[in-house]
Amino acid sequence: MNYSNRILNTPSSFIRDILKVLGDPEIISFAGGLPNPISFPIKEMQQAIEGAIQKYGSKLFQYSTTEGLVPLKETIAARYKKRFGLDFSPDDILLTNGSQQALDLIGKVMLNKGDQVLIEEPGYLGAIQALSLCEPEFLSVPLENDGIDVQKLKETLQKNKVKVMYTVPNFQNPTGLTYSLEKRKAVREVLAKYDTVLVEDDPYGELRFQGESLPYIGAGYLDEQSVLMGSFSKTVTPGMRLGYVVTKNKQLMRYLVTAKQGSDLHTNVFTQYAINEYLTNNSYEDHIKKIVDLYGQQASAMLAAMDEYFPKTVSYTRPEGGMFMWVTMEKGRSAMDLFNRAMEKKVAFVPGNPFYVGAPDVNTFRLNYTNATEEIIKEGIKRLGSIL
Amino acid sequence: MNYSNRILNTPSSFIRDILKVLGDPEIISFAGGLPNPISFPIKEMQQAIEGAIQKYGSKLFQYSTTEGLVPLKETIAARYKKRFGLDFSPDDILLTNGSQQALDLIGKVMLNKGDQVLIEEPGYLGAIQALSLCEPEFLSVPLENDGIDVQKLKETLQKNKVKVMYTVPNFQNPTGLTYSLEKRKAVREVLAKYDTVLVEDDPYGELRFQGESLPYIGAGYLDEQSVLMGSFSKTVTPGMRLGYVVTKNKQLMRYLVTAKQGSDLHTNVFTQYAINEYLTNNSYEDHIKKIVDLYGQQASAMLAAMDEYFPKTVSYTRPEGGMFMWVTMEKGRSAMDLFNRAMEKKVAFVPGNPFYVGAPDVNTFRLNYTNATEEIIKEGIKRLGSIL
Repeated sequence: MNYSNRILNTPSSFIRDILKVLGDPEIISFAGGLPNPISFPIKEMQQAIEGAIQKYGSKLFQYSTTEGLVPLKETIAARYKKRFGLDFSPDDILLTNGSQQALDLIGKVMLNKGDQVLIEEPGYLGAIQALSLCEPEFLSVPLENDGIDVQKLKETLQKNKVKVMYTVPNFQNPTGLTYSLEKRKAVREVLAKYDTVLVEDDPYGELRFQGESLPYIGAGYLDEQSVLMGSFSKTVTPGMRLGYVVTKNKQLMRYLVTAKQGSDLHTNVFTQYAINEYLTNNSYEDHIKKIVDLYGQQASAMLAAMDEYFPKTVSYTRPEGGMFMWVTMEKGRSAMDLFNRAMEKKVAFVPGNPFYVGAPDVNTFRLNYTNATEEIIKEGIKRLGSIL
Repeated sequence: MNYSNRILNTPSSFIRDILKVLGDPEIISFAGGLPNPISFPIKEMQQAIEGAIQKYGSKLFQYSTTEGLVPLKETIAARYKKRFGLDFSPDDILLTNGSQQALDLIGKVMLNKGDQVLIEEPGYLGAIQALSLCEPEFLSVPLENDGIDVQKLKETLQKNKVKVMYTVPNFQNPTGLTYSLEKRKAVREVLAKYDTVLVEDDPYGELRFQGESLPYIGAGYLDEQSVLMGSFSKTVTPGMRLGYVVTKNKQLMRYLVTAKQGSDLHTNVFTQYAINEYLTNNSYEDHIKKIVDLYGQQASAMLAAMDEYFPKTVSYTRPEGGMFMWVTMEKGRSAMDLFNRAMEKKVAFVPGNPFYVGAPDVNTFRLNYTNATEEIIKEGIKRLGSIL
């Protein structure tokens, strides 16, 4: 049987594959990107479901529109208004099966085979996988501590014809790094000169435990070229797969809707009603504060343990929010080798390789700190330190 | 901005577009494919949700596997065993966002641009739209009253290199027609000689109100080349978007899973737990019987009204199950013209055009009978008869 070239050239997700083999309950896993269950408002969601069924009955169970529930889109728009003063209307928003699906749809409407996609190095592997299905050419620009390397970004845009630039501006996956205000402005200025769509993926933006929220790079500034992605996965529930894609570019939105029709008709509308009911009847702010406080403590615990147990030859990022840290060993070390030894010590992480579209820095790896107690974090880092 | 060729060549869904404009409550709509709300076991689903949360807690809200919940896949496999004696294991099943997503995934793993897809004429427009995103060449073979024209199928397979054949063997969308046992055998024999994947889409199979269930064309017979699609949309709820794709071809399944990872990580797991809890704690058979009895009555009411109010020059199918009938007017008539006049009479249907990949029979249209009372069906058909 002859399969498509697209699927033959798409890597299986390293993370999804190793998550399946991490069944041993004795393994301390810093590998996944799982939110802490504290972020799931289970009781409140149960009440919201009951309330929504009482109010809207069979509408929760029937087919619905491809674009998504208008009241929920109004809620999302109101939050962008409140947090950033941004003016989005429900028509600027399409609800998706988690923000991962937004990537699939963006690829479908933007990319012909061989078109160029620019991504941070290292970059989110889920984006690499989703867009790989459209067989683009990937270009990468290194990430510095305060955001992408602007000089190299300029050069890359100038020398090529980049159709889509993908970025995670806040607490990036995999590095945990955040763009500074200056870098945001600089990237915006550069991009305004090119016919490149900027996709800002912001699943972690609400999870800031240090410093102040910063304006987006493109959203609110580069209207026609700006696409923003958001998600309820990290603040309400990932299991219900509810994300969204936002753009003021009407034609792009129309095409995203057509792609969504063909891909799955519409997003689970039961979930849309339930989450909107939850958001309107509870203090979302208070709920997020609980998550942020916990993640801040977990991050501090991991950093303290790393300061104590990791050799000085090893460096790591100090995130202001989100879920991840990025570790760099001496040149010549291999995180893949370390992974095998770590599994013997019953501790897991994600080696850096799958986060690169070009030659990887094989001496890097990603740690997640949101899904373990401070005690377990300390024990896991101690084990890891012993083999570093 | 330059969009992808794929999206420029993908039609927006005529049905999804007109559903949005059918807001006027005075319009009698035979246009959509909406199940009757009687098919939504709302109270039982509420109990199932409570039960599932009590048993599995945060697992309903956390990230889950791409492949889908094993207990639900066991339930699905057991039903195929019971209904058809088919031996599927959970590993042969991938859970999707409605069966529409299965089409998207099949396209992704099978089709390069220009690869050939064979579809019934007329055929399901959602399949045409989903696969259009992979830019295939569509070939069509006419549907006869007892299934596809086997002689023309043979010729088409011989003259071409068809990679995927798509069929709806039971109560086809849009015609309501069902393959006879003889046609199933004949198609199976023909396909066995070619390297063509047979995709059998069976969303309506449980909804038979006349005659006996028949074995599948490929499933259970053409193992490596057979893909079967199913759905809970017509028997439990379409709003929750839960379907599945089944194949014993291990490599194909592996690629489908990789495509699903990139497309949206996994299907809503809250829904998977809830629907499995519903299926295991209630008599699904009894529930389906209620739906089937109702649809049988509605179909009879529509046929009786058509016999009374339609001129003899108009012919129509008499389905044994499912949700649709197919009407053919005299040559020279246009269902698009009729649609405009019907809207003045406040009655809606779907003109045949979007169900064709080649030159359409413009004198055809589709009627749905599942979402209106017998009285309203009679009134709508009377209005339609007055302009036929």
